Amino acid sequence: MSVANPATMRALVLEAYHENVLDAIHRLRVIDRPMPRPKRGQVLVKIAAAPCNPSDLLLLQGKYGELKTLPTVPGWEGAGTVVASGSGLLARWLNGKRVACALRADRDGTWAEYFLADADNCIPLKSQLSFDQAAGLIINPLTAMGLLETARREGHRAAVQTAAASQLGRMLLAIAQEVNYPLVNVVRRDEQVELLKSRGAKYVLNSSHEGFAGELKSVSERLSATAAFEAVAGDMTGTVHNAMPRGSTVFVYGALSEEPCGNVDPVPLIFQDKKVAGFYLGAWLRRRGTIGVLRAASRVQRMFIDGRIETTVQRRLSFDEAVEGLMQYVEHMTEGKVLIMPHGEMK
Amino acid sequence: MSVANPATMRALVLEAYHENVLDAIHRLRVIDRPMPRPKRGQVLVKIAAAPCNPSDLLLLQGKYGELKTLPTVPGWEGAGTVVASGSGLLARWLNGKRVACALRADRDGTWAEYFLADADNCIPLKSQLSFDQAAGLIINPLTAMGLLETARREGHRAAVQTAAASQLGRMLLAIAQEVNYPLVNVVRRDEQVELLKSRGAKYVLNSSHEGFAGELKSVSERLSATAAFEAVAGDMTGTVHNAMPRGSTVFVYGALSEEPCGNVDPVPLIFQDKKVAGFYLGAWLRRRGTIGVLRAASRVQRMFIDGRIETTVQRRLSFDEAVEGLMQYVEHMTEGKVLIMPHGEMK
Repeated sequence: MSVANPATMRALVLEAYHENVLDAIHRLRVIDRPMPRPKRGQVLVKIAAAPCNPSDLLLLQGKYGELKTLPTVPGWEGAGTVVASGSGLLARWLNGKRVACALRADRDGTWAEYFLADADNCIPLKSQLSFDQAAGLIINPLTAMGLLETARREGHRAAVQTAAASQLGRMLLAIAQEVNYPLVNVVRRDEQVELLKSRGAKYVLNSSHEGFAGELKSVSERLSATAAFEAVAGDMTGTVHNAMPRGSTVFVYGALSEEPCGNVDPVPLIFQDKKVAGFYLGAWLRRRGTIGVLRAASRVQRMFIDGRIETTVQRRLSFDEAVEGLMQYVEHMTEGKVLIMPHGEMK
Repeated sequence: MSVANPATMRALVLEAYHENVLDAIHRLRVIDRPMPRPKRGQVLVKIAAAPCNPSDLLLLQGKYGELKTLPTVPGWEGAGTVVASGSGLLARWLNGKRVACALRADRDGTWAEYFLADADNCIPLKSQLSFDQAAGLIINPLTAMGLLETARREGHRAAVQTAAASQLGRMLLAIAQEVNYPLVNVVRRDEQVELLKSRGAKYVLNSSHEGFAGELKSVSERLSATAAFEAVAGDMTGTVHNAMPRGSTVFVYGALSEEPCGNVDPVPLIFQDKKVAGFYLGAWLRRRGTIGVLRAASRVQRMFIDGRIETTVQRRLSFDEAVEGLMQYVEHMTEGKVLIMPHGEMK
């Protein structure tokens, strides 16, 4: 540990889960914690920027798939500079490098001045990529890639996606375009239809329109779109399921409506070989293995640099602004990500 | 065609689908139809008894997976005596034999005096088996067997079933007991709890009881019951899904509530590798192939003869009583099957 790294650091700390997400955010505290010390195969990352994703909000509510021992520092991903490393070739090689990193165990997360990362879970950044973009390199883009890869591997020749104008939805569109995979994009406002068409989307449907279910049925039939990437839950899960052709799988990967999945007509479910299944990034990453993940992340990095995908940032927060800023964010999630930047601007 | 078989026969005929099942039954007509003539590989079965199953009601409503060209004779299965046959070894061998039979194409069904069956889809009956029991030899017992086999093949070590006191539920219990497969039985009345316990069921839960979801969670966790056989649909699908352990699949095979499947918590769906899928007997039979089906049916026949499974018959209907009797049946389905017996009692 170099003398440049002090003995303590500041972190946002969650002391109890709260079902109401605003309660949970309101009770986050900025606390001094001992500076983590990297062991063999680990590195210490000075966090430049860490986003708040829907999966972070789920953690705060105690609803995330893998619960953490409390108190804990939230934050599933981030970007920064490696300032110290434990033993091991890879860890030492990373020293001084700019990286994107993610948490993969029951440890403190990235909403802190410093974050202890596994070296083999760090992605060295190309110099053209800003920390702003690198902060969201992993969760959204790899979820998009994982969904698409899963659908293709299972033989689905085209797919439907809901919440298509979300940051993740737009990444999915870009990744699908790159491989000429037909994608039916479902949004709920006319200006989102325009936005996606301006990005080259061929099929965009507005679920607020009267004839939506019929339009979805006809286009998904025509394209043999038998996979759906569903981020809304509630009745949308059933509406999509009911409209899709024989042999379809609806992959639910989010629950933006915060409602239980419903409205699933049992008749096509039974007779048309359909399924409603979950998709969880953590499980996909484990199946893909370290090398596979690094390869996917490298492809994502090129797409960020080319400008084919991007993360829209609505606001950058210091620790002192974090609680207020996150509460605002929950009300305005469609306007872009918020980034927690514990050290202000870093290069 | 022997002179014993007249040139016309009487049949119950469906002329239009009606979403309301009582409307559909009310409009069934008894009509004279030309006597079918068996071609190569076909036999003519003089129907002794044909049941009304939930899948028949779905057909009348136009909701069954495989719609038939109208007008048509309903009835997916039945039992009787082969009175004429086309060419082909098997067809000729069946002549004069008592058989159980089922429809597997867009042709007229079993609610008729005579039914044209594929010879390789007929199950010769052992002499101890009555036509009453043989009439329901295929759909309920093979659905029970198909569900159980599917769960075991996919590695589920135990299962939950809803509507466990139904005829099919009791068959599932008996088949599971035969192979020592742990089954958690869900019913909705206390007397059904007693009934299933008297038949040796070890785990029976009443879904009307306050703590049901918690009990289901704890017993399915303890038994690693990661498959559910779900016949109710509506919120029951979600209640069962939400209570079951990581890696669970809910196989929906019926919709007794006539409600869309709902209440599926997206959080465990996403994070715990769960699925809601349909199970359709027709698809399972095709996967299993003719020999596999005959083998399964032979096992079922032995279980009927031993008394380990049985079909409770609440009423036998002549053609003249059929419409009124079927309308009554819809209101009292839990009291047993009704059988349509076009020729009265046959030996």
